[in-house]
Amino acid sequence: MKKFFLLVTSLFLGLNAFGQQALQWGAAPAASPVINEDGTVTFRYRNPKAIKVQVTGDFLPTQKVSFERDGQQMSVERPGVADLKEGRDGLWEYTTDFKVPSEMYNYTFVVDGTSQIDPLNMWVNRDVASLTSILLVGGGVADDYFVHDVPHGTVSKVWYDSKTAGFDRRMTVYTPAGYETSKATYPVLYVLHGVGGDEDAWVTQGRATQILDNLIASGRAKPMIVVFTNGNISQEAAPGENSTGYTVPTMALPQTMEGTFETSFPEVVKFIDGRYRTIAKKQSRAICGLSMGGFHSLYISLNNPDMFNYVGLFSAAVGVTDPSISPIYQDLDAKLAVQFAKKPALYYIAIGNTDFLYKANTEYRAKLDAAGYPYEYWETDGGHIWRNWRKYLDAYAQKLFK
Amino acid sequence: MKKFFLLVTSLFLGLNAFGQQALQWGAAPAASPVINEDGTVTFRYRNPKAIKVQVTGDFLPTQKVSFERDGQQMSVERPGVADLKEGRDGLWEYTTDFKVPSEMYNYTFVVDGTSQIDPLNMWVNRDVASLTSILLVGGGVADDYFVHDVPHGTVSKVWYDSKTAGFDRRMTVYTPAGYETSKATYPVLYVLHGVGGDEDAWVTQGRATQILDNLIASGRAKPMIVVFTNGNISQEAAPGENSTGYTVPTMALPQTMEGTFETSFPEVVKFIDGRYRTIAKKQSRAICGLSMGGFHSLYISLNNPDMFNYVGLFSAAVGVTDPSISPIYQDLDAKLAVQFAKKPALYYIAIGNTDFLYKANTEYRAKLDAAGYPYEYWETDGGHIWRNWRKYLDAYAQKLFK
Repeated sequence: MKKFFLLVTSLFLGLNAFGQQALQWGAAPAASPVINEDGTVTFRYRNPKAIKVQVTGDFLPTQKVSFERDGQQMSVERPGVADLKEGRDGLWEYTTDFKVPSEMYNYTFVVDGTSQIDPLNMWVNRDVASLTSILLVGGGVADDYFVHDVPHGTVSKVWYDSKTAGFDRRMTVYTPAGYETSKATYPVLYVLHGVGGDEDAWVTQGRATQILDNLIASGRAKPMIVVFTNGNISQEAAPGENSTGYTVPTMALPQTMEGTFETSFPEVVKFIDGRYRTIAKKQSRAICGLSMGGFHSLYISLNNPDMFNYVGLFSAAVGVTDPSISPIYQDLDAKLAVQFAKKPALYYIAIGNTDFLYKANTEYRAKLDAAGYPYEYWETDGGHIWRNWRKYLDAYAQKLFK
Repeated sequence: MKKFFLLVTSLFLGLNAFGQQALQWGAAPAASPVINEDGTVTFRYRNPKAIKVQVTGDFLPTQKVSFERDGQQMSVERPGVADLKEGRDGLWEYTTDFKVPSEMYNYTFVVDGTSQIDPLNMWVNRDVASLTSILLVGGGVADDYFVHDVPHGTVSKVWYDSKTAGFDRRMTVYTPAGYETSKATYPVLYVLHGVGGDEDAWVTQGRATQILDNLIASGRAKPMIVVFTNGNISQEAAPGENSTGYTVPTMALPQTMEGTFETSFPEVVKFIDGRYRTIAKKQSRAICGLSMGGFHSLYISLNNPDMFNYVGLFSAAVGVTDPSISPIYQDLDAKLAVQFAKKPALYYIAIGNTDFLYKANTEYRAKLDAAGYPYEYWETDGGHIWRNWRKYLDAYAQKLFK
């Protein structure tokens, strides 16, 4: 046994850790990131030849950066940057001078000006075409993002025949713990991603299946089926999971936000109602989405007023489209009148107060207010980020089917 | 629309590409890796401050490295190393001087002695605690590892109540295309991972679901349910997917290769036969595994001679255990006599000729030969690597249930 492990370990070292670990043979093992007992977090990076090593991520206070593009003055908020200091054996280190609040963060190192993930941390998220390292801090809001010792739902990658697209397309389906062993029927929540996302986004960056497991296990949400569609109708599946091969993901996909995905949505609902034990009626159907997915949720529910009893718009890209693109986007006011006359159980809007879509959402709410349409509103800190969308989903899921 | 994309793009740049892209503003876009028309592959890495940049991976010829550990002289084969050359704008580049054969490769860059993934390639595999970048070259053996425009099976992460472990455990289950819309029953293949692996390993590094989709779609394999267990009985699920949190994965897990997982296996089979429309009999059950999983497959089939009609040992860790550890490992000869008296349809052994377990497998085959037990044997080039295990699965799956 010992001999076997020794051999296997040697072999693994030979294959995978060539470079860093082999060259640092004998150097003290290092861990990164480490959440310290006092709540600070330490980042470590081993590289004796580096001249400057920094960490940047959304656990640091943001910086506002202004720039000009296409003659327009623009500004974005960027994560802060902190310097690591070099210690023994080329081991660079930075410890926050503050207790890092519970949250799921993304960060990268910047080594002599070049960005890279933390090589000591194998937990990464892909966001469009880049990878970032994950820091998950419990003891608060992020507790729902951890896997806990509770009953777990089944998470499946499922392909369906899309008549609209003309090819098979992939979605992620969550069935709650107990689904397979019961004969019960379940309500369904459809959860839509933003630009650059796909049917994986809410499950990886969004921690949606952990959130659902934890909410349902603690009785805070009803058991429900949750469907994560791919809102890029020109795509079979997430990059790397489709037959176009290992191309670089892009945010500029054809047929995005021009009505086709929204038009196709009833075929998704029909597929789910046919495949799963759903309660196939409006009272037991909810939809929500972030950014582009909020935009999709708005227009899908608007054009199918008998389909969804719950509508959630998270940092929704309202007011950004040209109605002439598609009939789906036309007659907003008249369609809203129909939708609200049917009294949806919940119309929910959430956005961060520094979101670039804040003004558009304020205008959209003013329209609803002027018409006397009831909705629930949650305004948080922060901008157009996953940190907010996870919180919105957590809150929204607790309001459904009750 | 344009305005929205501009805003979103700015925001994404702000959040994610701070560092490299922002600092290289205006530099030519670079892609890596690129498979050129002549079959060579180009790797690129942008870093104006680097002094030496190398690429190492299993697409390069291996190097034999000798070293001493615990007083023993040992040697391992390591992937070759090639230098990138610096060009304009700090863009380093290396093009192979040979056509890279079809295969799925892993590689990393070594920048001034420190290993890192290719930041221009977001396709990575986790192998135990390290990440490597993926290079997938079609036009040959790797064609079965691509997602093609064929009917796709459903891939589910499923939890079951393990009486042996005393907690819920996760497995991956593949149901072939058409499973959900038919009333047919299906044979089942159980596929086991090696040390350091888990229920994800065969699906990520092993490309097993792509292999199955492609084999079944082309009629080379029968439609079958495929179950990927987690052979580390002390683990609920893969690292990051269990309630111990985001700890660093290890190959030194408790209760590994001491009989408990093998003893528990009938509960896995019972769960699958209860949950899925299986043909619940020996004639329609197969098992196989790589390295530790080959060892597990040997002893699970040995101790349950009426359970599996097909047994596949891929680079199996035969001959490495002490029978006193568990009754599961005792009376090998007598149990083999019983197993082979029951005439399994296939006993399949595959190994590479430079595998560190080659000698142990030769000895095991000699034992089978001496007793006159029939088996099929495939000896390939190469060592204890995924490249071989994918090929073995591809070949083995084609021999089942016919």
